[in-house]
Amino acid sequence: MSRKIEIFDSTLRDGSQGEGISFSPSDKLKILTRLDSFGIDFVEAGNPGSNPKDLEFFKRAGTLGLKTKLTAFGSTKRSKIAPEDDDNLRALITANTEYITIFGKSWDMHVDKILKVSHGENLDMIERTIAYLISLGKKVIFDAEHFFDGYKNNPDYAVETLKSARKAGSQTVVLCDTNGGCFPDEITQIVKDVRDKLGTGIGIGIHCHNDGECAVANSMAAVNAGASHVQGTFIGIGERTGNANLAVLIANLQLKSGFDCVPASSLPLLKETAHYIAETANMALPNYMAYVGTSAFAHKGGMHVDGVSKEPATFEHIEPERVGNERNILISEVSGRASLIAKLQKFVPDIEKTDPVVQRLTDNIKELEHKGYHFEAAGASIELLVLKELGWFKPFFEIIDFKIISSHSSENTKTAVCCPLGKADAFIKVRVSGKLEITADEGDGPVNAIDKALRKALERFYPVLSEMRLVDYKVRIIGGEDNTAATTRVLIESTDGKTSWTTVGASKDIINASMIALLDSLEYMLYNNNEIYYNL
Amino acid sequence: MSRKIEIFDSTLRDGSQGEGISFSPSDKLKILTRLDSFGIDFVEAGNPGSNPKDLEFFKRAGTLGLKTKLTAFGSTKRSKIAPEDDDNLRALITANTEYITIFGKSWDMHVDKILKVSHGENLDMIERTIAYLISLGKKVIFDAEHFFDGYKNNPDYAVETLKSARKAGSQTVVLCDTNGGCFPDEITQIVKDVRDKLGTGIGIGIHCHNDGECAVANSMAAVNAGASHVQGTFIGIGERTGNANLAVLIANLQLKSGFDCVPASSLPLLKETAHYIAETANMALPNYMAYVGTSAFAHKGGMHVDGVSKEPATFEHIEPERVGNERNILISEVSGRASLIAKLQKFVPDIEKTDPVVQRLTDNIKELEHKGYHFEAAGASIELLVLKELGWFKPFFEIIDFKIISSHSSENTKTAVCCPLGKADAFIKVRVSGKLEITADEGDGPVNAIDKALRKALERFYPVLSEMRLVDYKVRIIGGEDNTAATTRVLIESTDGKTSWTTVGASKDIINASMIALLDSLEYMLYNNNEIYYNL
Repeated sequence: MSRKIEIFDSTLRDGSQGEGISFSPSDKLKILTRLDSFGIDFVEAGNPGSNPKDLEFFKRAGTLGLKTKLTAFGSTKRSKIAPEDDDNLRALITANTEYITIFGKSWDMHVDKILKVSHGENLDMIERTIAYLISLGKKVIFDAEHFFDGYKNNPDYAVETLKSARKAGSQTVVLCDTNGGCFPDEITQIVKDVRDKLGTGIGIGIHCHNDGECAVANSMAAVNAGASHVQGTFIGIGERTGNANLAVLIANLQLKSGFDCVPASSLPLLKETAHYIAETANMALPNYMAYVGTSAFAHKGGMHVDGVSKEPATFEHIEPERVGNERNILISEVSGRASLIAKLQKFVPDIEKTDPVVQRLTDNIKELEHKGYHFEAAGASIELLVLKELGWFKPFFEIIDFKIISSHSSENTKTAVCCPLGKADAFIKVRVSGKLEITADEGDGPVNAIDKALRKALERFYPVLSEMRLVDYKVRIIGGEDNTAATTRVLIESTDGKTSWTTVGASKDIINASMIALLDSLEYMLYNNNEIYYNL
Repeated sequence: MSRKIEIFDSTLRDGSQGEGISFSPSDKLKILTRLDSFGIDFVEAGNPGSNPKDLEFFKRAGTLGLKTKLTAFGSTKRSKIAPEDDDNLRALITANTEYITIFGKSWDMHVDKILKVSHGENLDMIERTIAYLISLGKKVIFDAEHFFDGYKNNPDYAVETLKSARKAGSQTVVLCDTNGGCFPDEITQIVKDVRDKLGTGIGIGIHCHNDGECAVANSMAAVNAGASHVQGTFIGIGERTGNANLAVLIANLQLKSGFDCVPASSLPLLKETAHYIAETANMALPNYMAYVGTSAFAHKGGMHVDGVSKEPATFEHIEPERVGNERNILISEVSGRASLIAKLQKFVPDIEKTDPVVQRLTDNIKELEHKGYHFEAAGASIELLVLKELGWFKPFFEIIDFKIISSHSSENTKTAVCCPLGKADAFIKVRVSGKLEITADEGDGPVNAIDKALRKALERFYPVLSEMRLVDYKVRIIGGEDNTAATTRVLIESTDGKTSWTTVGASKDIINASMIALLDSLEYMLYNNNEIYYNL
């Protein structure tokens, strides 16, 4: 039987220290619930004493009946004070969790320069804090902060801090590479040493940061050297360069190294879970993230595309389906015909390489990419191009013209901001099934105004459009060395609640670029409901 | 003396296989020149036979007098053909480089399923290709594609391919983890085995991909096991999840492990070089990238901010200055007063924590962040807030009102695009030094039009603004689950050619958000030239 490795996720605590990350209590509950259903053993979620929102979060989380062990996090008690009189510990207890993570100093330099107490006093703080919590019925995980730096500087003292935690009844001691600068060979050696010095009867954990881009490898080195508990964050977010990426670690450990981390049925949800957490954190998951990124199994080089179409193992280290990802054949100027043919085969399974459609599409894509379009991320726009080139696409509507007026006056501006507030009005002429529709609307901004006016015209004919909404809207300046007149590329992700699709538009004019992507998005929605509308 | 490790950069070849990456010949020359001045030993740049643009690139590169060894890249000759009759090899030779990288198969599965030739024939293809190039006076690096997968499947055959390359006169054999799925312990063992089997007299190289997020650790494992040549891409871009990140590897190997990779004087240029390459590739360098990201030494947690202000080594694995980076104290709702005070100290070195300005600024930032602003990446906007709160900022101008009209008509649209092309007109009323200026202009889009109209009004008073230009413009939808009416956050990066700064605006209206960020950017420029204008 494979060895069980406990997975401990700190997205809600260490992850929230990442630049640009800020979780609302509702975000935290969403992420907690998702990690629970994924089968994560421990979820760490900060200190309820630090603010009242966190206390509210712990209260609500306590009612959810989770399998995951929700864990509060706080430091050892202050020196020269009884644990029961320490405000921080008191607040920790109010979280009402079965498990508490206590972090303490194991690097003597920190004891000298930051805590400014004697080495003996620090050991006493660790022991008394943990003993007190255990006397209240809690289970305690001890995070030995800066353990590896401490061990390199003073191995005996670093190990003493672990022994104090063990003596007080801590069930797991976690060796932290807090500054993230260690390498796998050091981790291997030190974890082995610690195991020898502590003996059996206590779990050893590992907590790595990514400052040398080795957090995943370091965590694996520790597991191979005997650690049975791995801390990290599901998509690697965290202070500075981030924490060990648990999505990647779980796949590496369970799929490829034979350890037991989560229920086997969870692995096909790996990608979906990573994207859900990224979306809740309001960040874009990096495309190239191992296993879960949209590029993780993307092939662009002609030879690679050719190789994987003959035998996937030629250029893929695992089958993408095992982590819920999929092979992605990229369409780009340099990708060659093999990629395009793979896309065409969705519609015409027996298409020949020599079919003139292939050449026309290649030319068309090259010309559009030259103008600033970029189709790699915009699968829906590529499908529409293919359908149009095949002659299978019948337009659902035709835009005749539209105008947007954006007016900003300081007379309407109550607050003392530097920029007068504004409003946007739009009108549009559209031809649908031979009828000319002229509609107008106002909006919070120009894109919103024209979107509303256009939908007003179209929803009368295509009620299904009311189910479609925007998920994300991204704007990128291309050839960004010029000025505000450089080409603008807009990517729009839309959903109908069941699936989502991405479209692209490019123009020197942001309104035009947005409108092109928006129109593609509407057309894609209508085409995929064509059994309803196609013969309108 | 420390052991020399050859650094081989493939940004222009393997890097260009990354999703979203596309280099023009001028981009390639820029990157090549920068890698040369950084002191990279080898720069690999594709196959001139694949397209005429590449041939032009090699011609121009040949005239630059570079110290770096520019290297062309191609495969072994086809089977059953003399090397001198192989079109691909002929094209490679036209690149006119001293060094050529030849890749060949070392995994028997590939020989069987992709090449479909006998194992002996593959060995012959490797040997004859390399021998031919060497007979022409070339130096040859042999990339053993899929070496580790091949070795795991059939170690004897994999080593035979290396021996064929050595016999033909290849000076370095590079072990490639082409599918990127290996782990450091495997790499260590296999590189040691190969060294034992090949003996001395030939260099061993390593080429890793990041599919298990171990490319950096794997490359280090190979170096520690005896490899003396490391391939990767400077910022890690490449097929799928990317290649080993050379910026990180160089820092890990040279700063922390005592190897000799590049001239010591290059290391403080590490961050700048990484950002330059990212900008040329038209991508945003991930903030959390080790060593070179803007978050690599960013501190948000109150305790961390407090710690580094007492002793940097408490939460930094190296001094950021050694790689040209800097400590970054983040301002955010959760960061506490220590961060804000660190910013205020730039202007008022002896500011007290209890100064009422600190509370007012904290409240102000909280309110703005609640509205959708995000200051972590917008240092210039934070400085302006601080200056305004201190009462040190005197407005340079006042916007009274402005209007933008965006008109799109299919009558003006020559090409058959789905969206009628448009134009934007803007007018603005601004008060400068008591004078009311009313100007108008047209532009390619609304932001361009209003930017031009505003500059027309201001440059008469502040000619220095003509030196300022936009570097990047990013738009993000916040709370993106709604629709086109969700709040829009705009980040603008501007430069005066010497330095650059980032400002932020947020509003439901993209025009408003853009304008707020633009105005901050102009004000920041003017404030920093205040010796000229402040008493206007």
